[in-house]
Amino acid sequence: MTVSVGVVGFTGYSGAEAVRILTSHPHCEPVLLEHRADSGDHAKLVHKSTIRRAPATAESVANEGLKAVFLATPPEVSMDLAPKLLEAGAIVIDLSGAFRLRTPERYKQWYKEDHTAPELLAEAAYGLPEYCRERVRKARLISNPGCYPTAANLAIRPLIEAGVIDRSFGIVCDAKSGVSGAGRKPSLKTSFCETTENFSAYSILTHRHVPEVLLTSGLEDREFSFTAQLLPIDRGILETIYFRLAQPLSGADIVGIYEKRYGGSVDQTEPFIRLYEAGHVPDLHAVARTNFCDIGVIADPASGRCVVVSAIDNLGKGAAGQAVQNLNLAMGFEETAGLL
Amino acid sequence: MTVSVGVVGFTGYSGAEAVRILTSHPHCEPVLLEHRADSGDHAKLVHKSTIRRAPATAESVANEGLKAVFLATPPEVSMDLAPKLLEAGAIVIDLSGAFRLRTPERYKQWYKEDHTAPELLAEAAYGLPEYCRERVRKARLISNPGCYPTAANLAIRPLIEAGVIDRSFGIVCDAKSGVSGAGRKPSLKTSFCETTENFSAYSILTHRHVPEVLLTSGLEDREFSFTAQLLPIDRGILETIYFRLAQPLSGADIVGIYEKRYGGSVDQTEPFIRLYEAGHVPDLHAVARTNFCDIGVIADPASGRCVVVSAIDNLGKGAAGQAVQNLNLAMGFEETAGLL
Amino acid sequence: MTVSVGVVGFTGYSGAEAVRILTSHPHCEPVLLEHRADSGDHAKLVHKSTIRRAPATAESVANEGLKAVFLATPPEVSMDLAPKLLEAGAIVIDLSGAFRLRTPERYKQWYKEDHTAPELLAEAAYGLPEYCRERVRKARLISNPGCYPTAANLAIRPLIEAGVIDRSFGIVCDAKSGVSGAGRKPSLKTSFCETTENFSAYSILTHRHVPEVLLTSGLEDREFSFTAQLLPIDRGILETIYFRLAQPLSGADIVGIYEKRYGGSVDQTEPFIRLYEAGHVPDLHAVARTNFCDIGVIADPASGRCVVVSAIDNLGKGAAGQAVQNLNLAMGFEETAGLL
Amino acid sequence: MTVSVGVVGFTGYSGAEAVRILTSHPHCEPVLLEHRADSGDHAKLVHKSTIRRAPATAESVANEGLKAVFLATPPEVSMDLAPKLLEAGAIVIDLSGAFRLRTPERYKQWYKEDHTAPELLAEAAYGLPEYCRERVRKARLISNPGCYPTAANLAIRPLIEAGVIDRSFGIVCDAKSGVSGAGRKPSLKTSFCETTENFSAYSILTHRHVPEVLLTSGLEDREFSFTAQLLPIDRGILETIYFRLAQPLSGADIVGIYEKRYGGSVDQTEPFIRLYEAGHVPDLHAVARTNFCDIGVIADPASGRCVVVSAIDNLGKGAAGQAVQNLNLAMGFEETAGLL
Repeated sequence: MTVSVGVVGFTGYSGAEAVRILTSHPHCEPVLLEHRADSGDHAKLVHKSTIRRAPATAESVANEGLKAVFLATPPEVSMDLAPKLLEAGAIVIDLSGAFRLRTPERYKQWYKEDHTAPELLAEAAYGLPEYCRERVRKARLISNPGCYPTAANLAIRPLIEAGVIDRSFGIVCDAKSGVSGAGRKPSLKTSFCETTENFSAYSILTHRHVPEVLLTSGLEDREFSFTAQLLPIDRGILETIYFRLAQPLSGADIVGIYEKRYGGSVDQTEPFIRLYEAGHVPDLHAVARTNFCDIGVIADPASGRCVVVSAIDNLGKGAAGQAVQNLNLAMGFEETAGLL
Repeated sequence: MTVSVGVVGFTGYSGAEAVRILTSHPHCEPVLLEHRADSGDHAKLVHKSTIRRAPATAESVANEGLKAVFLATPPEVSMDLAPKLLEAGAIVIDLSGAFRLRTPERYKQWYKEDHTAPELLAEAAYGLPEYCRERVRKARLISNPGCYPTAANLAIRPLIEAGVIDRSFGIVCDAKSGVSGAGRKPSLKTSFCETTENFSAYSILTHRHVPEVLLTSGLEDREFSFTAQLLPIDRGILETIYFRLAQPLSGADIVGIYEKRYGGSVDQTEPFIRLYEAGHVPDLHAVARTNFCDIGVIADPASGRCVVVSAIDNLGKGAAGQAVQNLNLAMGFEETAGLL
Repeated sequence: MTVSVGVVGFTGYSGAEAVRILTSHPHCEPVLLEHRADSGDHAKLVHKSTIRRAPATAESVANEGLKAVFLATPPEVSMDLAPKLLEAGAIVIDLSGAFRLRTPERYKQWYKEDHTAPELLAEAAYGLPEYCRERVRKARLISNPGCYPTAANLAIRPLIEAGVIDRSFGIVCDAKSGVSGAGRKPSLKTSFCETTENFSAYSILTHRHVPEVLLTSGLEDREFSFTAQLLPIDRGILETIYFRLAQPLSGADIVGIYEKRYGGSVDQTEPFIRLYEAGHVPDLHAVARTNFCDIGVIADPASGRCVVVSAIDNLGKGAAGQAVQNLNLAMGFEETAGLL
Repeated sequence: MTVSVGVVGFTGYSGAEAVRILTSHPHCEPVLLEHRADSGDHAKLVHKSTIRRAPATAESVANEGLKAVFLATPPEVSMDLAPKLLEAGAIVIDLSGAFRLRTPERYKQWYKEDHTAPELLAEAAYGLPEYCRERVRKARLISNPGCYPTAANLAIRPLIEAGVIDRSFGIVCDAKSGVSGAGRKPSLKTSFCETTENFSAYSILTHRHVPEVLLTSGLEDREFSFTAQLLPIDRGILETIYFRLAQPLSGADIVGIYEKRYGGSVDQTEPFIRLYEAGHVPDLHAVARTNFCDIGVIADPASGRCVVVSAIDNLGKGAAGQAVQNLNLAMGFEETAGLL
């Protein structure tokens, strides 16, 4: 059986990646849902793509037999479309920030606009499968996590849970992202000549992804220092995370904590978390075009300092890949379908 | 004595490069002429730049004592400002395509808009110093050549003059440019994610720079096949030029023809043309951030095939560098002032 | 049934790509054949890869049950291993240039070394499926084409066959390749700082891939002017091909000739050739990480000039992808297995 | 008067940059000192460079009238040449790590080899002019600082001196460098295909530049967490530095502390330090091809968290630029000669 899944925002980078994954998914086929005049195809193949297209409306849910819809759209579009598509019976997986925070006040504080569908905030399941798998399985509305919080939470939460971080020192998360994380809309900041041979920091201590990290990790704002930075690459997020250990542990001890939580070589509980031997850390080539989150640890037991490096593809585990993982859970498919 | 030189369009790449060169020029200082609300400085230094600013008006010519003004602006702005600034007594060096062709009809054919200052077309001196030096020295209005035609004409014209190209075969000019040649205005085509790890051809056989090449080289349109292509780099143009020799000449013979025209190691007539030993060709690092045009030759006397590689920095000899070279000529400065 | 396929040279870019494709191939599994001390894995995952390893010897063919072996090795290694592996009963698909030319004299002329397995030259099938499919199906030894010749021949040969090129003018093929085409062995030329923000030409008129183009296209050396150039990207080859038409044809006419040869939207004969509407040409993003060759045409019927742009991924259709396509033919699998 | 300055290691990136700066220096001319068979020029200009060449020997100091010599060489070469060149009467400015630490034991600990000129360690002046200007003026042997420590110390030391950092929390310095910092010798790690579209961390907590930071800043090892990371760019170092304030200060307060130490807009004491308005930070384009160190501050007084971004060009202020600044001091030239 093949299920039809709509994608709104298919000309954006996350939406296009979702279409690409769904095209080779064993149980799904994508339907392009047109929301506004898009810049369209840049390829003019004689042999046209045969993917179906339809308007991004509630009617399309019935007409196209859509079981689920991905919203790879700005938050204001997601807030507008989600209620209608849910009403029409589709499972909605939203890749924007619209449903990630728990109250309209918190949303307004970070996104600087009123929430227009506040009644859905309580219902939305936060789609980080490693921590919210059961809720996602039963959800109608899934809020796909932000790219930065995905890499951060998967690295930080197991250590918070294990109580091995000395929180009085705080945690520094120095994050670097490829340019596709800023979306496809042209801007000076993301133009080639401004970005190539450059590197820049932005939203230092004030990025809107911070509250997502706090919600999942349980950290207080003052305990978490976060800087977002723009790498001159297309895809990938690498976060270098610094903290002090609450007790004298080796790097292998820390890797062991991760293995206990995520599964090791024998019992691979979490299919998309890959751990490195202590002393080794991932680079971005290791995770490019995958749904993996790779984690490596360097520790200095003498001083108690520890550095964890967490790497994902911002369009993979940071967006469309994780959205498909959530889709698989919500539809009852094998969790890795289409993703390995 | 230091001369004040205005720069309109100083936030664009060519304009900014002109300001940079003028800042270290021994006889000039730049004045930033504001034409419209620009996106402004991206640096927020506490120690502010001390470069003067004024409006881009005829009055500023008198108020600021401007001897010359660079127009690093779109053609329609150049056509509007040039008459006013000339009237106010400034020498005008226009970096746009507004005054490069000889008739308003020809302009409309290639630029798809009416020429609004046609009375200046006959007066404008085409600022390719290697071929129009004496006219430039006496000019009020100098039309700075396009980037692609500069690299093409400096390579092609000496061989046309020497009669060594078999024109019946035509000339192929395969041109590659860095992204800064497309200007600073954000667009999807010049955004980082569309450009990195990519390479694309555009305006195949129909680029608006073609008529400039024909005017200077004396070639007919059907003799000249030109393709523009976008390199994933910031700065630089490299043109690979293919033709057949009219007589059996070696690479060294061809280099000798260039040396005769541009000067050799003893008598360096042309300060900004650098020739390579036969069998060697320039790459783009050789010319980056310079006003040089580097030329190399590969010939196969047996078959009569010859390939010439011509390389410039599109913002240097292809725009702002050449504009300063023209300024030096028009002001009576040493031709290389500020450029070595 | 799953077939074991050995890969020698698996740490190189072509070999690693072959392993990647085979890993998700429905009928194959890769076996890493170790030929010498390699620099090894750079990833140190706790969850180790489970791909089998064995020495690159004739014995491994039997011990590992290898039906076929890819040689992603330098020509001298391929000439050494191919006879032994064939003797042991494996189908050998060689990605080097060792078996692409037809005589040991021709090999020595272009590769500057003696051929050490000349007895296999006559037997080797040239693995360009679009032109040699039947021979490949029956071959023991398949010589996988060079990357540049693949893009060139797929674009040129249909037009030569159709007799629409005026060969008296010759054909210019201006080729640009990503750095991975130069292999993984460190060299100054392929180091980051020498390559980034650069572009350079090499082997102008003398590249060793030229004779492959002549063999398949039927052109004479003097009719074919070829320049190889290094793009500051990882993967991709784009060739801009210039010629004159023997008769007044439109771009659509030329696309029609390609459709007749390769199949159009209704009857898609060739699964890996994609044609563009006349007036549109591919860029490298269109073919990255695929086994497609995309072809677009610009023609100027008035002057008879025509430009064809041909694009492939040099590690895909230009190396490992095409090698798997050849494997599929030789093993009797569906030709597209593992490649879409 | 023009002074001759030798450059050993002129084919490396730092050495070549030193030659480039000296070529346009008002009081110096470079002499290329050949130490071993270098890969030589890649350009084959007919109009050859006229820069003098001589062997890298003590005799050349006399024969070429060298007042000073730059050693842009590995530490073992610097330890060998420095005593001989000093003996011959030249001022030696060493760009390697050979003379940066104070004892042979400390050298061996971090550089993993014996120091072969330990008698010079006490004499060598550490060439960070902002902190060691008077010693540099009188020095025979100047040890040019490492690139990472330059950016770190210029940002950290004023705040340590002012006592505004709560050292009990420690300082995190997350550093990112362009590839030229790794030198010109080809290696897999610095090859294009491994670096492009990638980002990787190395020497986490154990980089050999750490002891230089400790020496200048006065920090203890356990107070300073340092990670080096490789950016896919040619030139530039950006360090994101995290710490806690010992008292509730604003960003403007912190900028004020820097202004007091380095000079502000009126009294510009330090010519190569540029400060940003509080809330703004530099990117790498701001410092590319300059000798500036740009510093910006983000503070959150409520929580006491503070982030400082420090940016330099690793070949400029991080190597050759600073070496020329030191040369200017030692020779009694204006400190900024050749550097603005």
